[in-house]
Amino acid sequence: MAGESVTLTLDAVHSLSVEVLTVNGMASDHAHAIAKVITAGQRDECDSHGLYRLIVCVRTLREGKVVPDAQPVIEDISAAATRVDAKFGYSQLAFEMGKVSLCEKARQLGVSVLAINNCFHFSALWPEVEAIAEEGLVGLALTPSHSWVAPAGGTRPVFGTNPIAFAWPRSGSHPFVFDFATSAIARGDIELHRRSGAKIPLGWALDGDGNPTEDAEKAINGTMLTFGGHKGSALSAMIELLGGALIGDMLSMESQRFDGGVGATPCHGELILAFDPKMLGGGNAELGQQRAEEMFGAITGQGARLPSQRRFDARERSIRNGVVVPVPLYQDVLKLLER
Amino acid sequence: MAGESVTLTLDAVHSLSVEVLTVNGMASDHAHAIAKVITAGQRDECDSHGLYRLIVCVRTLREGKVVPDAQPVIEDISAAATRVDAKFGYSQLAFEMGKVSLCEKARQLGVSVLAINNCFHFSALWPEVEAIAEEGLVGLALTPSHSWVAPAGGTRPVFGTNPIAFAWPRSGSHPFVFDFATSAIARGDIELHRRSGAKIPLGWALDGDGNPTEDAEKAINGTMLTFGGHKGSALSAMIELLGGALIGDMLSMESQRFDGGVGATPCHGELILAFDPKMLGGGNAELGQQRAEEMFGAITGQGARLPSQRRFDARERSIRNGVVVPVPLYQDVLKLLER
Repeated sequence: MAGESVTLTLDAVHSLSVEVLTVNGMASDHAHAIAKVITAGQRDECDSHGLYRLIVCVRTLREGKVVPDAQPVIEDISAAATRVDAKFGYSQLAFEMGKVSLCEKARQLGVSVLAINNCFHFSALWPEVEAIAEEGLVGLALTPSHSWVAPAGGTRPVFGTNPIAFAWPRSGSHPFVFDFATSAIARGDIELHRRSGAKIPLGWALDGDGNPTEDAEKAINGTMLTFGGHKGSALSAMIELLGGALIGDMLSMESQRFDGGVGATPCHGELILAFDPKMLGGGNAELGQQRAEEMFGAITGQGARLPSQRRFDARERSIRNGVVVPVPLYQDVLKLLER
Repeated sequence: MAGESVTLTLDAVHSLSVEVLTVNGMASDHAHAIAKVITAGQRDECDSHGLYRLIVCVRTLREGKVVPDAQPVIEDISAAATRVDAKFGYSQLAFEMGKVSLCEKARQLGVSVLAINNCFHFSALWPEVEAIAEEGLVGLALTPSHSWVAPAGGTRPVFGTNPIAFAWPRSGSHPFVFDFATSAIARGDIELHRRSGAKIPLGWALDGDGNPTEDAEKAINGTMLTFGGHKGSALSAMIELLGGALIGDMLSMESQRFDGGVGATPCHGELILAFDPKMLGGGNAELGQQRAEEMFGAITGQGARLPSQRRFDARERSIRNGVVVPVPLYQDVLKLLER
């Protein structure tokens, strides 16, 4: 390790993740489901959703916040709606179980909703909406987190970073996918700035006194801001309501209290919608595909990028060459193997 | 008319709207449905969705673009999905007819979708999501428009102004409602700046050469920008896909071509979702209401505003005192009575 980074194969990232999680007490089915999304995050160079997340996962495990061998329970709410009670385990296994019913119902009725309750949630949402797009369906997912973000016009946290993700299936191509926090930036990015001692741009956060700050430490202890002013703030409120209040789960403020200052993975709910273009397309889903492709072409044809392009480029690079991990992070992860 | 404005009662706004529309050939059921939302827009001081819209409606009628007596046709896609083919009439009557089925299905299954096809659409979306909230349901609506807006990183129009609206029912209070364009600003606002000769802020639009502009005329003939950079741009693409490609209808680029340079009301589709908190709330919808109210209280308690507050304040003012209309606009509307 002469340089400042190590290169790992995707298999090595996956094995390391499984090992770190199981050594720290996670049941095997959960460890494998979680390792899958951590590997996908590292593969797509979403650094804050890759190996770095193992640190928070293990802290959450060691604090006894998450149930390491929770068995999710599926409830058939209706012909269009499914609930999975994750029983205070991590979300990935619950999603894998609920996805089957979500997709079946969407194919039968055109639209379907999956509510995941009582789950610890740390991953990006794009693995979930991409999994729906792989089924030929349109996916939309959203979730609260912890109350770190002030509403527009305010100075104190109310909302979570509240991501929203969407995927549209494309034949013969990666799906059209976006996944973004409704905060100005993902919290993980501020955490990475703190780790590296770098300044953050103005507009991301306020300090504890409600003043704009470039200090990542003060931002973490102050309040983050939403993207897009009052519009981003409104969206963030919608995500609290749909991903929390609607489905009988905690909003970000309550989830924060539930955490009790431990800094564990947030525990809350998640709402996922699936739509079937074949059912809703008026007998001509093919035309809908063509219309979508015309739009994608008009975007890329003027030199603008589709939202997931950088991630898909990284994916191809990582599959070919493996992933590059900074040595300090790699060492921190290896330390998690020591109980 | 000594001053620069006239004051009209809401009844007068409604009657004038019905008269202008029927004199210009609109069937009575459509005229009343449209006058209702125009009156609501003027009442809530959403100037670009009030009496001003009659000018565009009449232009659209006179150009023969819209079918003035279209009879919407309802199709029962599934137990969770309804389609209304507006048959190239205005959208309001189609929504009123489809809403009944949308709400019934949401109550039975927890979630339901309404696709409106082939409608001319000019109104704000908040009247529709508010109507869903009045039924005790959660409403979400979105629609493309005409391709006036560039994607993030681009300089040429692809997206419409693509509004998204959401309503959450609150007992004993106005619902929590937002309704915003995913463009940096509503096109109607740029049009109002052009009418008054005022400059527009940088960040709203680019001129025909792709350069930032403060000139409303150049903005109208150039390209508008999305709000919130690449995130707003991603949302706008989602609205094209859900409100167009998914439901067998035109995207904003095709709708623009369909217009053929006339500048009529955009013709396209609309997607509306309804969710039932009683079905999805896990047996305790009341707790969901309390959680929502805690969040609203945390927002207003720090001096920040809920998204619809200004509009609801205006509503109460207008119901009490009537609405104030600038004389030039009032005269333009009166001229529409002359065939």
